[in-house]
Amino acid sequence: MNQPVRVTIWNEYRHELKNPAVREVYPDGIHQAIGSALPEHHTVTYALLDQEQHGLTEERLQETDVLLWWGHTAHGEVQEEIVERVYQRVLQGMGLIVLHSGHFSKIFKKLMGTSCDLKWRDVGEKERLWVVQPGHPIVRGIGEYIELPKEEMYGEHFDIPAPDELVFTSWFEGGEVFRSGCCWTRGKGRIFYFRPGHETFPTYYNTDVQRVIANAVDWAAPVGTAAPAYGNAKPLEELTI
Amino acid sequence: MNQPVRVTIWNEYRHELKNPAVREVYPDGIHQAIGSALPEHHTVTYALLDQEQHGLTEERLQETDVLLWWGHTAHGEVQEEIVERVYQRVLQGMGLIVLHSGHFSKIFKKLMGTSCDLKWRDVGEKERLWVVQPGHPIVRGIGEYIELPKEEMYGEHFDIPAPDELVFTSWFEGGEVFRSGCCWTRGKGRIFYFRPGHETFPTYYNTDVQRVIANAVDWAAPVGTAAPAYGNAKPLEELTI
Amino acid sequence: MNQPVRVTIWNEYRHELKNPAVREVYPDGIHQAIGSALPEHHTVTYALLDQEQHGLTEERLQETDVLLWWGHTAHGEVQEEIVERVYQRVLQGMGLIVLHSGHFSKIFKKLMGTSCDLKWRDVGEKERLWVVQPGHPIVRGIGEYIELPKEEMYGEHFDIPAPDELVFTSWFEGGEVFRSGCCWTRGKGRIFYFRPGHETFPTYYNTDVQRVIANAVDWAAPVGTAAPAYGNAKPLEELTI
Amino acid sequence: MNQPVRVTIWNEYRHELKNPAVREVYPDGIHQAIGSALPEHHTVTYALLDQEQHGLTEERLQETDVLLWWGHTAHGEVQEEIVERVYQRVLQGMGLIVLHSGHFSKIFKKLMGTSCDLKWRDVGEKERLWVVQPGHPIVRGIGEYIELPKEEMYGEHFDIPAPDELVFTSWFEGGEVFRSGCCWTRGKGRIFYFRPGHETFPTYYNTDVQRVIANAVDWAAPVGTAAPAYGNAKPLEELTI
Repeated sequence: MNQPVRVTIWNEYRHELKNPAVREVYPDGIHQAIGSALPEHHTVTYALLDQEQHGLTEERLQETDVLLWWGHTAHGEVQEEIVERVYQRVLQGMGLIVLHSGHFSKIFKKLMGTSCDLKWRDVGEKERLWVVQPGHPIVRGIGEYIELPKEEMYGEHFDIPAPDELVFTSWFEGGEVFRSGCCWTRGKGRIFYFRPGHETFPTYYNTDVQRVIANAVDWAAPVGTAAPAYGNAKPLEELTI
Repeated sequence: MNQPVRVTIWNEYRHELKNPAVREVYPDGIHQAIGSALPEHHTVTYALLDQEQHGLTEERLQETDVLLWWGHTAHGEVQEEIVERVYQRVLQGMGLIVLHSGHFSKIFKKLMGTSCDLKWRDVGEKERLWVVQPGHPIVRGIGEYIELPKEEMYGEHFDIPAPDELVFTSWFEGGEVFRSGCCWTRGKGRIFYFRPGHETFPTYYNTDVQRVIANAVDWAAPVGTAAPAYGNAKPLEELTI
Repeated sequence: MNQPVRVTIWNEYRHELKNPAVREVYPDGIHQAIGSALPEHHTVTYALLDQEQHGLTEERLQETDVLLWWGHTAHGEVQEEIVERVYQRVLQGMGLIVLHSGHFSKIFKKLMGTSCDLKWRDVGEKERLWVVQPGHPIVRGIGEYIELPKEEMYGEHFDIPAPDELVFTSWFEGGEVFRSGCCWTRGKGRIFYFRPGHETFPTYYNTDVQRVIANAVDWAAPVGTAAPAYGNAKPLEELTI
Repeated sequence: MNQPVRVTIWNEYRHELKNPAVREVYPDGIHQAIGSALPEHHTVTYALLDQEQHGLTEERLQETDVLLWWGHTAHGEVQEEIVERVYQRVLQGMGLIVLHSGHFSKIFKKLMGTSCDLKWRDVGEKERLWVVQPGHPIVRGIGEYIELPKEEMYGEHFDIPAPDELVFTSWFEGGEVFRSGCCWTRGKGRIFYFRPGHETFPTYYNTDVQRVIANAVDWAAPVGTAAPAYGNAKPLEELTI
């Protein structure tokens, strides 16, 4: 019964190639692990940093309803021109789902207008993501919380604009909390930041994490609304000037 | 492709019976005018003030995904018990769409926690509802604004909590503005207030108004998320006390 | 350099009289512990449940800029008439600071429009309140977090409307999180909910907790803005009807 | 009784020098008209585009609590380095008040993460700014609305992130509305956008406009809160890994 959605999953795809420990967890890349778990009504394409134009040509983006973004070690290699292209598409209505270390990507920082900085600790501790907005479409099929036995910690303060909707808040074994599922609208585009997904842990095989991502794709898909007109405008009423 | 939604349209249904001028505009009642325009995937039932339990039995509400509310002259006659019943269903996830003079209904005031007061003037002046969140699902298929040649004026200050999402803002010929399309979540339930719809004007035959109501029904429909557990809770982690 | 503020601290004052363990911690009542710690520019008055009109006469409320509310065991004994009186004063601009178990008070539930329900556990575990909006006036003088060695746990889901501003989020030793410092506006009045303060723990002697309460009083104090006019309104522009 | 605030007013200062019609309205520049009207507890400094470093040296910004920004015709001439410097200061807590055509300044677009585009018409029509949050400190001393007999029109859709607080909404004679007083927080800094102030009209001599700007300066002034620590963090609790 769901509307079809054209999804592009962008992955930096470096850790998997360079680090055997990561390759063991994600032999075909994080992008494949995420894409394979999406439901049938999602048509999935992959785009990678080391492809021409990072795989994000104008045509590819025009045919994308929702873009997923996983990056970490090579944020600086993403060309400004491509960042600008993605940015324009978001304002025009393309959904964007930023995953884990994508918090420091150029595109996320540009859309947020803040540093997007945070605390972190990579020792593999327990994370529990609590649902704080239980009626939200992004938590369809999820219980009161998602528990991940081993994850990287991200802790507050997370330097983001106050989310339009806060869906998840994480508890970490080491004593921190984090706003781990956050929604914003920029232009006509919907953005969801979802915290978990460190490259050395099998987080993207967790069925709850997969369900949240699938729900977020449906939530972020554009709804076919009109584009506003900007610039000089004639009066709609007679002026008495 | 849309999910089926069970809609109950509640109408006070007094103006139509007592006032020939209103009956001429809405011969079968405002509820019928609204219900007839809903799309096929909406299953519509009507409930009226003068029915037993105002037509809102426990069974009826359990079988309602989204409730629409039109009332004006008889807010005081709605029994507290029924208000409480609707309130509980909203917190459990039923969507609620409050129309026009429903701003002063008991159920809306109870859910808002404010007076819901406003300015008004009933002379039949021009209203133009501007879209201020153009990517929102409630404005699918709507242009930059909706123009209504004759409506009652509602003006700021509208004493409501700041909306979670502001979708429409109205311009009135007489010089006022109004936040005329507002979204909130209460418990698991989604609420949309939509301003237009005075009983003496054919507003509910306007195809844009009809489309907004249909969109709002889809937006407010519950998404099948888990109910939170409340009360005493055992620890999830070992305590060192 | 601060503006003088007239503060009324309302306390149920039952635990302290009936339970020796509580009396030992707060021999003069929770209200006195809170009031004694407020700065010089706050003029403090106390009001108690068992006083006539619960100490909240019309005159007392008219002379109150900010009302603090601590209640727990006797929410049901607060008369509807007094709740309505406090409610009207909040809409008119009086600040309201609701403490700890006051989440279930009649006045808070009426202003929120939700059940205000939550998870709880009273074993005296560690709470760490993280600042999530570090530039907010309510956290002036506070570090990155406040740590309380023993507190009652309150856990999500907390059934409140999404706060206009979220200032604190708590981590609990037993595995839960909680939105523990939340701001709303209702009418002209500012409301702050602050979670800690169980009667069996010396939380109100913690200097950070005291500072947050003092800051919240300054933040919630009315600013002398105009009262909106409601009801029938003449047009400000010539109508062409 | 107010806290002293160090204000820097930045002005492009081109229209006044080149256009006799503007010079007649603002013979000493828009910045002087604004600065002269600020109250005694505001210490005012001016900074101009054509000064070295646009008058915004690191030292000047470090000694600025709140920066006002008026620009229009020369947004493109503002150096990226200075934009970055102002941006960092806002995240650290400096208040920023963006006036009128400053909506298209580099600094505002960078902080918003959107195009900040809008409709406009420069014929000198009537604007009425309605207060939609009547208890807000920015409207202290203001009535229900501010009326300006001749202003440039700005109309929705205004492509900004949903404001954290919406204080004013404008009605325009020609049929448009506009969110004309908007608050956001970015990092520790508070931002206020205030719409009126076209260079050919004497808007900055209007006492209500002056009062709003003065109130906004007080509201945006930093409150001396702690700077969060970012980066790698040791656990606060013993880990069981």
